[in-house]
Amino acid sequence: MPLRVYLAGPEVFFPNAVAQGAEKKRLCAEYGFEGVYPLDNAIADAGALSPIALARAISHGNEELMRSCDLIVANCTPFRSVSMDAGTAFEIGFLRALGRPCFAYSNVALDYAARVRAVPEPAQSVWDHETRRADIEDFGLAENLMIAVAVLDAGGHFVVRDAPPDQILSDLAAFRDCLALAQRTLAA
Amino acid sequence: MPLRVYLAGPEVFFPNAVAQGAEKKRLCAEYGFEGVYPLDNAIADAGALSPIALARAISHGNEELMRSCDLIVANCTPFRSVSMDAGTAFEIGFLRALGRPCFAYSNVALDYAARVRAVPEPAQSVWDHETRRADIEDFGLAENLMIAVAVLDAGGHFVVRDAPPDQILSDLAAFRDCLALAQRTLAA
Repeated sequence: MPLRVYLAGPEVFFPNAVAQGAEKKRLCAEYGFEGVYPLDNAIADAGALSPIALARAISHGNEELMRSCDLIVANCTPFRSVSMDAGTAFEIGFLRALGRPCFAYSNVALDYAARVRAVPEPAQSVWDHETRRADIEDFGLAENLMIAVAVLDAGGHFVVRDAPPDQILSDLAAFRDCLALAQRTLAA
Repeated sequence: MPLRVYLAGPEVFFPNAVAQGAEKKRLCAEYGFEGVYPLDNAIADAGALSPIALARAISHGNEELMRSCDLIVANCTPFRSVSMDAGTAFEIGFLRALGRPCFAYSNVALDYAARVRAVPEPAQSVWDHETRRADIEDFGLAENLMIAVAVLDAGGHFVVRDAPPDQILSDLAAFRDCLALAQRTLAA
């Protein structure tokens, strides 16, 4: 039985979310894994559900999928922010608490502190007064240290690479690197 | 023995981080809880450690504190973003996977989709091409559904309130609401 990889990331919000998931699963198979994608959950009668009932059904389905997986590979590329998608961060925490290996990648190679400092003034000006005065965590890590260290300590790797500007979220070179590293680490 | 509350949120980055934690702990005691703050971990010889060794020590200490806590109360107010601090999202996922009650608050009452749509064009213009084309999750929830539903399903509440503009991150009225709800729920 191939190990099951939970495919976390903001691609579920892409206009071509299903195709992107299929491509990630295809790559998983190439490396001997079974890819498990949040949209694999078919929600019965989704159209008949209230928004909160639908949100609950999606969340429950994803938590069940996460518990069924042996490891996670998470797309931590910045999303609407200097930081990764919050839902993906939640999912890394979830798998980390369960003791499963965590692999992560970002298609922006600049580290967290450098990304914050690179936000231009017009964009920073919408941050509230206290956010603007907050310390910028600077450990040379790709993300908040709780996430970056969890990935390293959970037996994984945090791969960073600069993707082409029009494929910042969807480029899969770093994802492929994660699979190769997972294959090497977990086979050993 | 009072129940131990893990105090998650971006206040660890405040210039007055220690004082803010002390005030949160004081409020916890008022509601019969013991507040546990990430900065409670004294790192021996922090100045002598490399950045990555220090990051590891902080992460390990916080994971140990989380495992020692009975519930979490998380500050999910947007931080440098339309979304909450990624480290805090990780911590909610961690406690959720362990089956502990999760309470959360945001000092911005607008829901996630409304916040994204309210980002002015100069700030949106720094988002990459694919982020700009991504669907905006719209379930009327305060955060990404994995987080918002986890809080509700873990026996908690997600409190939202608008704080004064100069205390968007630090105002504690919604935090106090969480403690009152936790007291009522967990005593029952």
